[in-house]
Amino acid sequence: MPLPENHPLETGQTRDSALLRSYRGEYVTARPVWFMRQAGRSLPEYRALRADIPMLQACLEPELVTEITLQPVRRHGVDAAILFSDIVIPALLAGVEVEIVPGRGPVFAHPVRTRADVHALPDLDPQALDVIRRAVALTVAALGTTPLIAFAGAPFTLASYLVEGGPSKDQLRARTMMRADPQTWDALARWCARVSGAFLRAQVESGASAAQVFDSWAGSLDRETWRRHAAPHTARTIAALDGLAVPRVHFGLGTAGVYDLLPDLGADVIGVDWRTPLDLAHERAPRVPLQGNIDPAVLGADWPAVADHVHDVLRRGAAAPGHVVNLGHGVPPSTDPDVLTRIVELVHATEVRG
Amino acid sequence: MPLPENHPLETGQTRDSALLRSYRGEYVTARPVWFMRQAGRSLPEYRALRADIPMLQACLEPELVTEITLQPVRRHGVDAAILFSDIVIPALLAGVEVEIVPGRGPVFAHPVRTRADVHALPDLDPQALDVIRRAVALTVAALGTTPLIAFAGAPFTLASYLVEGGPSKDQLRARTMMRADPQTWDALARWCARVSGAFLRAQVESGASAAQVFDSWAGSLDRETWRRHAAPHTARTIAALDGLAVPRVHFGLGTAGVYDLLPDLGADVIGVDWRTPLDLAHERAPRVPLQGNIDPAVLGADWPAVADHVHDVLRRGAAAPGHVVNLGHGVPPSTDPDVLTRIVELVHATEVRG
Repeated sequence: MPLPENHPLETGQTRDSALLRSYRGEYVTARPVWFMRQAGRSLPEYRALRADIPMLQACLEPELVTEITLQPVRRHGVDAAILFSDIVIPALLAGVEVEIVPGRGPVFAHPVRTRADVHALPDLDPQALDVIRRAVALTVAALGTTPLIAFAGAPFTLASYLVEGGPSKDQLRARTMMRADPQTWDALARWCARVSGAFLRAQVESGASAAQVFDSWAGSLDRETWRRHAAPHTARTIAALDGLAVPRVHFGLGTAGVYDLLPDLGADVIGVDWRTPLDLAHERAPRVPLQGNIDPAVLGADWPAVADHVHDVLRRGAAAPGHVVNLGHGVPPSTDPDVLTRIVELVHATEVRG
Repeated sequence: MPLPENHPLETGQTRDSALLRSYRGEYVTARPVWFMRQAGRSLPEYRALRADIPMLQACLEPELVTEITLQPVRRHGVDAAILFSDIVIPALLAGVEVEIVPGRGPVFAHPVRTRADVHALPDLDPQALDVIRRAVALTVAALGTTPLIAFAGAPFTLASYLVEGGPSKDQLRARTMMRADPQTWDALARWCARVSGAFLRAQVESGASAAQVFDSWAGSLDRETWRRHAAPHTARTIAALDGLAVPRVHFGLGTAGVYDLLPDLGADVIGVDWRTPLDLAHERAPRVPLQGNIDPAVLGADWPAVADHVHDVLRRGAAAPGHVVNLGHGVPPSTDPDVLTRIVELVHATEVRG
């Protein structure tokens, strides 16, 4: 099943945007730039809008999602929007009880720790995704020629929240399940891949021009464990997009040790965290465009230090077949948004040496 | 100033223990084994003893420290004890207001964020360390031929707690200080190196036969930032032991990218977290003995899975010039202590192929 006729990549609306060109490894005159968590607490207009609305509720109100998703595009002039959502949304839409506790993160009413718990997980009714489809359609219509990136969590990260019942320092319970009861782990991760994959596919079918899978906690696994117990499920999530010709981006924290394996999972682009210089990432995965990796810690420094660091990132990224500028992690809530706007201007004003 | 005459390494009491021999890269018939956080919540006898006593208070009562430090030696038959303490103890003894909040970690009354904050940090009065000297002397006397390992936090980890005012996911404030105000960072990290170094030296002078520096959060730094803003301070902490002929162990989480640099900082032994197979760690730092790295996540699996994994760790560690078996991180509080005892028996019963 190909992209619908009115999809922005089919109509040509976003096809030649700097983001899409760079994700495909084609030449651009100025590098595209966007920021993970660009829609969020660093923006006063976001804080005003979200004041009385719980996070997950906000993710399920299409008009609100559209407005929040667009705020950073308007303010910073970034080259992409990413759907305002949360990695637990597909679980919530399947009927799993979860809330986001401010300052803590997602908390599940019933942690999933046994085979029976996994079997009791509800299937995701495709119609439950209609609210996401509406949000995406509205957002894409409002964005015009700016591409929207679809968003989902990787199975390991989503599953580790489910097993722990909430955030954890090192995902110990999930990692123990892999070792102690690999079949239950496998069943749980498959469920996560199904719901996250369906969530991602719904966004792309409804108009997203690219897709990014976030594996925030993959860095807590050694390479062999990741390869055996996490990677196949990430590949399943990505494969949910089969037939839909959009670039697929993989981002994880602490995943430098597996960059060489990501293209085989279906990742067309690798998002790099702040700890791996882009030239080194390029050595490890020489054939794919890279995305990243301004250190969020530099955003609190004075402008000359920021500019120096951004130039360094641009220089190191130049060798890759394509380079989409981003942070090496999400925008910290304390960030002065004007710094982000200046970074966009700087990146756009910096000539690309071909 | 050499070790005192009555030091266990001088009297010969611990000199030929399997731990010391392995730390020096000498042949042993059975590999030594101990566990990070072996003294702690996994033991019912520890929980009983600590029931009404706050963590930091427990660290400052010599008889209690001795008893807690000895508990795992008695129960498991491990080859080393490590002083029961906390990385914030030297700051507390200097007069910094801090408490350990259960379930959260160290919380400082006054975060250290400005140059004035750093200048206001009190010096550590050498006499304040007398309580530690007494605790070590008592412990060493009770241990007999089992060596005691001295314990301190690396400056980056201690400083990041001070800057954040408590635990944090990614040490963002500390990392921002490095970028935004490197001089203040440097002054703070030097203070941390001074107090941690004095803390470590007091333990060794009082009878510890080896020393281990914990850099729990170093993995949040890229290699270049670590090299510039963290490594020199770690080297200063280790250099506080100059003249005292004890092996120095470095342990950090996510530090595989800098193993090659650790020997130059004065580390004689590298502690390896669960994510880097020991054979790979050995390739990166071929000249030093290694310590590690059973995945704590395996401890919740059934015994055959545990034993398989331990055998794999032993096999991978065999190429290093010395191998002290340990976990790749601290003992999780939920661990069944009998599993640890069985691991000790297994390691001791496994022949070392020369």
